Amino acid sequence: MTSLPLINADRLWARLMALAEIGATPAGGVNRQALSDGEIAAWRRVIGWALEAGLTPSTDAAGNLFLTLAGRDRAAPPLLLGSHLDSQPTGGKFDGAAGVMAALEAVVSLAEQGEKPARDVVVVAWMNEEGSRFAPGMMGSEAFTGERDMDAIRAARDADGISVGEALDRLHQAFPDMPHRPLGFAVGAYLELHIEQGPLLEAAACTIGVVTGIQGKKTFQVVVEGAEGHAGTLAQLERRDALAAFARMATALHTEIGTIDADIKFTIGRVTVSPNAPSVVPSRVSFSIDLRHPDNAVLDAAGARIKALCEENASPCAVTVTPLVDAPSNAFDERLRASIAQAAREQGHSAMTILSAAGHDARHLAKICPAAMIFIPCRDGASHVEHEWAEPDHVAAGASVLAQVLGGLAFAPAIEA
Amino acid sequence: MTSLPLINADRLWARLMALAEIGATPAGGVNRQALSDGEIAAWRRVIGWALEAGLTPSTDAAGNLFLTLAGRDRAAPPLLLGSHLDSQPTGGKFDGAAGVMAALEAVVSLAEQGEKPARDVVVVAWMNEEGSRFAPGMMGSEAFTGERDMDAIRAARDADGISVGEALDRLHQAFPDMPHRPLGFAVGAYLELHIEQGPLLEAAACTIGVVTGIQGKKTFQVVVEGAEGHAGTLAQLERRDALAAFARMATALHTEIGTIDADIKFTIGRVTVSPNAPSVVPSRVSFSIDLRHPDNAVLDAAGARIKALCEENASPCAVTVTPLVDAPSNAFDERLRASIAQAAREQGHSAMTILSAAGHDARHLAKICPAAMIFIPCRDGASHVEHEWAEPDHVAAGASVLAQVLGGLAFAPAIEA
Repeated sequence: MTSLPLINADRLWARLMALAEIGATPAGGVNRQALSDGEIAAWRRVIGWALEAGLTPSTDAAGNLFLTLAGRDRAAPPLLLGSHLDSQPTGGKFDGAAGVMAALEAVVSLAEQGEKPARDVVVVAWMNEEGSRFAPGMMGSEAFTGERDMDAIRAARDADGISVGEALDRLHQAFPDMPHRPLGFAVGAYLELHIEQGPLLEAAACTIGVVTGIQGKKTFQVVVEGAEGHAGTLAQLERRDALAAFARMATALHTEIGTIDADIKFTIGRVTVSPNAPSVVPSRVSFSIDLRHPDNAVLDAAGARIKALCEENASPCAVTVTPLVDAPSNAFDERLRASIAQAAREQGHSAMTILSAAGHDARHLAKICPAAMIFIPCRDGASHVEHEWAEPDHVAAGASVLAQVLGGLAFAPAIEA
Repeated sequence: MTSLPLINADRLWARLMALAEIGATPAGGVNRQALSDGEIAAWRRVIGWALEAGLTPSTDAAGNLFLTLAGRDRAAPPLLLGSHLDSQPTGGKFDGAAGVMAALEAVVSLAEQGEKPARDVVVVAWMNEEGSRFAPGMMGSEAFTGERDMDAIRAARDADGISVGEALDRLHQAFPDMPHRPLGFAVGAYLELHIEQGPLLEAAACTIGVVTGIQGKKTFQVVVEGAEGHAGTLAQLERRDALAAFARMATALHTEIGTIDADIKFTIGRVTVSPNAPSVVPSRVSFSIDLRHPDNAVLDAAGARIKALCEENASPCAVTVTPLVDAPSNAFDERLRASIAQAAREQGHSAMTILSAAGHDARHLAKICPAAMIFIPCRDGASHVEHEWAEPDHVAAGASVLAQVLGGLAFAPAIEA
């Protein structure tokens, strides 16, 4: 290993806070959903910082943002590190943004050292990690790794009827001079820093989480179809009330699936009722299901019950259950995990291994290259909320560990050895 | 009684269809919600027809539209007849509009006869009968009869945050030269024609419904407050999931209240989930309850159970239940009912007495003057739907009966005798 690439912790924090001004909500959070005007503004700000440091911006057909520090061997598979800039509608300042800004800080610090890395080093911000405006999430990383087809991605629509395709074209039009890379390229290694989004590091008073893997996740879209009618005249027994059927399904699902064991996570987060008027019997309810468990066998068994529980409670309405995401639990690269643990130890930060309860783009990158994640604590384990918070010292520590692991890889003659 | 005021059935139907073009939906229905651009356009069209016949338009602070045919005694309490021009978001061509257009046709036909009525005859279109954009409905007639305060009415907001007050000011600005009447005035009698919005007339092959009264109705707004969290990390037992609590409440309410007897009507028609994102545990659910029964004792007993059923199923969330509408069953004026039955008999239309399952503005007018309603059949009893349909012959028959009853009142020296 060559000399440690130090980071500038004050600059990192100041930039992270400056980024949080874009899409800031009155309650202190961030609403910067995928491909929105807010995300375009965030791109501009981040690109400005990258250009100052001599990095080259580029994008691809999936709307991923790349900021490249050129290495000596431009043909070698680059090192990739980053996260995402989009947020939940009532999200926080750190989910995604902390990982992109820590990656940028690590690479800018590397550039400032003056020695060219052995290969290109690329900061990435993946398109639509959150999946709140356009479902499901992780579109950018899934397109990059070839797991999802761009036509299917472009066809998804938000609540206003705007397609991903239309929104992507709008993003690209906002940056007319930016070069486009082919979608997907060989990657030497992938690193992602993220807030834990859970309470474990804080409870253990631990600064660095060495992420072993990501718990498995399945998502579904369920549509209940009944018949509209007048709330004052249609007899109860003649109704096909989609809301009444939905309520029975949701209760049965929460009761059975939500109580399988202490590790199960079951959420109905989005519900859309039509026509949603007080004196009209609802004709249609569509709702989302988010199901997670670290054990793939439990996850599969729980997922297999969902259709039956919906159908058992549908009558006299009809129900269709469409699986969207089916991501089993995965394990991250052992050598990278060891490098993260070593860097934390050398820098004097407390560290522990941890399973990620939330999904991340790293899940998909792990299928095409060695990949790993660094977690830092967040207050009360709260994330996807406006009061989400990470301490400046923890952000600095995580970025510094990231920078050290990056430094070790950037000057290695071959990662694959 | 002087000579019968005949109506022009073809003109009535043509105008009703022309009105349905405003806010027309692709599926053949109407979306012309209260105080919308569509309702303003409908006002313009109806006012144009009224002016042609020599009627004088005016409005009031509640955004009710009046079209007056001047009588000999301008000081006598006028005869009022009409309904409403606003619709549900996926409503039909007849709910409300048929009553306003039948009233206009009856009064225009009366004007065309050339003999001045003994007192003013006024067509009315009440503001926001439906209550779908701004809840609750019947704001115009309740303000007119003094049952609701204008400040409270003006403060209600739609889903976009626009207040009734702002929308009313906009309506009035669209008609800057229209005179304003004081809110509420003495009325000699009130008549309203409406589609039945139920299956009874059609099932009995009967053209005219002589409405005996309106079934009682209570509405409530319920808000469930939990706590937001990450769907992948927050343990099930630590959640305060507002959607899960809502589903339990809705199931309990449908199970207990919805099965009281064959006459009960229980509807949860509108549900709003926050933040409504697939991977966020919902922190807040608000929903509407619409409860109706013809027997006031049953209605009161059912209404008294709602708060308890919500509270029993709320834990670990909090719930607040706010009563909005509390309208007991009422009976319409017996002399007017007899006049309607007599006119139907004389014109050769089959007729039956019928209880209104739906609420109407006539409920409120009945508190300040003799009031009655005429029902005509609608296909399959379907209303508040885009395929809502009434036969041209039934519309003509209803309007002709309305015109005959109006004629009997318009030339009577005193209604109150």
